[in-house]
Amino acid sequence: MTSSTDRGPARHEAPRTSLFTDHYELTMLQASLHSGAAHRRAVFEVFARRLPDGRRYGVVAGTGRLLEGIVGFRFEDEELAFLERTGVVNRETLDFLADYRFSGDVWGYAEGEAYFPNSPVLIVESTFAEACILETYLLSVLNHDSAIASAASRMTIAANGRPCIEMGSRRTHEESAVAAARAAVVAGFASTSNLAAGLRYGLRTVGTAAHSFTLLHDSEREAFEAQVASMGPGTSLLVDTYDVEAAVRTAVDIAGSRLGAVRLDSGDLIGQAHWVRRLLDELGNVNTRIVVTSDLDEYAIAALAAAPVDSYGVGTSLVTGSGAPTASMVYKLVSRTDDDGVFVSVAKAAKNKQTVGGRKYALRQLGEDGLAIAEIVGVGQPPEGDGNDRPLLEQFVKDGELVPGWTGPEGVERARARHEASLAELPPAARRMHRGEPVIPTVYVES
Amino acid sequence: MTSSTDRGPARHEAPRTSLFTDHYELTMLQASLHSGAAHRRAVFEVFARRLPDGRRYGVVAGTGRLLEGIVGFRFEDEELAFLERTGVVNRETLDFLADYRFSGDVWGYAEGEAYFPNSPVLIVESTFAEACILETYLLSVLNHDSAIASAASRMTIAANGRPCIEMGSRRTHEESAVAAARAAVVAGFASTSNLAAGLRYGLRTVGTAAHSFTLLHDSEREAFEAQVASMGPGTSLLVDTYDVEAAVRTAVDIAGSRLGAVRLDSGDLIGQAHWVRRLLDELGNVNTRIVVTSDLDEYAIAALAAAPVDSYGVGTSLVTGSGAPTASMVYKLVSRTDDDGVFVSVAKAAKNKQTVGGRKYALRQLGEDGLAIAEIVGVGQPPEGDGNDRPLLEQFVKDGELVPGWTGPEGVERARARHEASLAELPPAARRMHRGEPVIPTVYVES
Repeated sequence: MTSSTDRGPARHEAPRTSLFTDHYELTMLQASLHSGAAHRRAVFEVFARRLPDGRRYGVVAGTGRLLEGIVGFRFEDEELAFLERTGVVNRETLDFLADYRFSGDVWGYAEGEAYFPNSPVLIVESTFAEACILETYLLSVLNHDSAIASAASRMTIAANGRPCIEMGSRRTHEESAVAAARAAVVAGFASTSNLAAGLRYGLRTVGTAAHSFTLLHDSEREAFEAQVASMGPGTSLLVDTYDVEAAVRTAVDIAGSRLGAVRLDSGDLIGQAHWVRRLLDELGNVNTRIVVTSDLDEYAIAALAAAPVDSYGVGTSLVTGSGAPTASMVYKLVSRTDDDGVFVSVAKAAKNKQTVGGRKYALRQLGEDGLAIAEIVGVGQPPEGDGNDRPLLEQFVKDGELVPGWTGPEGVERARARHEASLAELPPAARRMHRGEPVIPTVYVES
Repeated sequence: MTSSTDRGPARHEAPRTSLFTDHYELTMLQASLHSGAAHRRAVFEVFARRLPDGRRYGVVAGTGRLLEGIVGFRFEDEELAFLERTGVVNRETLDFLADYRFSGDVWGYAEGEAYFPNSPVLIVESTFAEACILETYLLSVLNHDSAIASAASRMTIAANGRPCIEMGSRRTHEESAVAAARAAVVAGFASTSNLAAGLRYGLRTVGTAAHSFTLLHDSEREAFEAQVASMGPGTSLLVDTYDVEAAVRTAVDIAGSRLGAVRLDSGDLIGQAHWVRRLLDELGNVNTRIVVTSDLDEYAIAALAAAPVDSYGVGTSLVTGSGAPTASMVYKLVSRTDDDGVFVSVAKAAKNKQTVGGRKYALRQLGEDGLAIAEIVGVGQPPEGDGNDRPLLEQFVKDGELVPGWTGPEGVERARARHEASLAELPPAARRMHRGEPVIPTVYVES
């Protein structure tokens, strides 16, 4: 398969993010500027009350993207004019927004880290005014990207070392597709079909041809000849437009023993993989690989474990989170100062959506074998760990300035390494495909 | 609830879309430029093989967005430099892309129209080279937006005239959120929380306050006083942070009889709606409305039909397509010219993903009562309808130029009207919430 990895100048424009915001955040801002409470210090926390049904762990993703977005969270003339002419907020609030620049602190789980129910995956501290209007944007990024990475992680486990290729762009929003490619690579995918993801994040992109290319030509042979002439014999030929056996023979006839791969995109993939492998070997093409790409999910990948398949292309199920398209994280005020400047823990009292108030700290408790035992969440102060326990909160923003290393292509590479290490540390049950409970419990330690 | 509708200058920048493209489209382009087949005329068709499991109809959405994107589908220096340094394609192909501008024709179902399995919802005719590289972008837009509109349409049916408010931005990618708000309004939603959707498409935006606003203040009373002082008594107060009854009494005490609405976001919504309504009436607030917003989907909305609820806020289930996050549409080459310039129908032969080759035409066959009977798809030539039948294909692009009226806020308003008319034309079974077959059959008429 033709593949490319960008080693050139990366694209780091801060996206314009300030209107990825719900109307109510700006009206709350207005009312709290009016009451004066807007200037109280506030601690907001992002967490998920639960994992998607049956999942054993989740994967935090999107952190690098959201940090780039916080930098770009400014209200320019276009946004201000819109808010003014529609009357969303009053003049005092418009003036505040015109000068808006996040000046607080952000901590959180490193991108790629595993998370569990109630893990404090992101903590934002600033004035209420500054932190409250980031709610929707931060949640959008984390909920989407974490859902994709959580699904992708299970797929790479199922693939057990064989490369997975992300190719779901067409089945999701065009910008979600770019973020999904990025999240998939964080969770161990080898490459993506998405070119914008290649440009923005330096991801390896791959692809050769679709059925339309074969149908465009007067015969399959002419199509294969054109492709091999243009891309060389190392290309991947799609062999299921007409008759698979005839196509494999034609492909080998044209490209010879250096044919890179054949791709199967329909039918009984397990059966086909076996006889196509035998046929390729008989024809002398022992190094020609087999790529399969037909509506795969983690279960289909696992079912192909014993088949002679070399790589998996995954589309729809990846970009839709394989049944869990959102991570359902929430952004809750857990602490704020009173008139004396003293922090007070706060929480909604409603019984069916209970939240633990107070600033959180988190450790992953590890056993003597180095495997995780529990997620320890300290309320109000850092929990005491023993020597093995691993602190989970990293600082991403300090006094409004990004801490370097979390964004751009560098952030993706670090996240990928973090994901691999985090997964290696989980108990073996984390790698099971069937439904189960979170693989470690979350334990609150109150101060 | 505070609400705003933009009547100011709309934002019509064409988005940069050319790298929302799978790698293989550009390698196919390269190989077909090499063989010369790139210059053959080609007809591509977008269709869905089936509706999501149990759905009775689908709703086409995203057309306005994708037409704006076709205009912006250009390869600028940044994209070309990326493709060159990563070696995705060769110099000949880069030169072609540098001059790329879609010069063909596009027809399709009007945005908002109902569709069924194998409805030819979009048809693209141009050279193979020009049409093949639009595949991923066109599918991304249609698959996402149609999935959301299809779910939203069922929700507005269930709401039976009560307004639905889209508030799911936080549970999906930040740009999907904007498109989801747009698609929801196409399918009958009254408004959205998403400010970017207000700016781009002139949608009405709404919102007042979250629990964090109440928790920020020293008491619920102080929070309500601040909100009413800032936004007036017509605002909507969130009454379930602590005790709902106490909150309703406080709200009425502060805002008086002109209190706009109370919002319930947790607990037994049906039971609460009844006694909160009685309490409001007893307190003399007969005009204060009740808004409910807790994890609603079309079934929960239907279950609230007999409760005294005035509007529904819908989040997660809307933006995730209520179980069907993608419309699973595909883009297939169905016809192309041969060396003599004569069109030849083409189709993949694989049995489990069968495609009917040939250019399609479509009519909605209507009975004497004006209700739809069948989706008639003519293969190769327009089917003969009787006088009642309604042709479904509209022209969107002619010789590369947009036909006016389909894009921007105007496009959304037309789509909304089209959706309403299209739905009114379907048999009553289309409005049932429980699972069933497509409400009309799709019938091919071969020429």
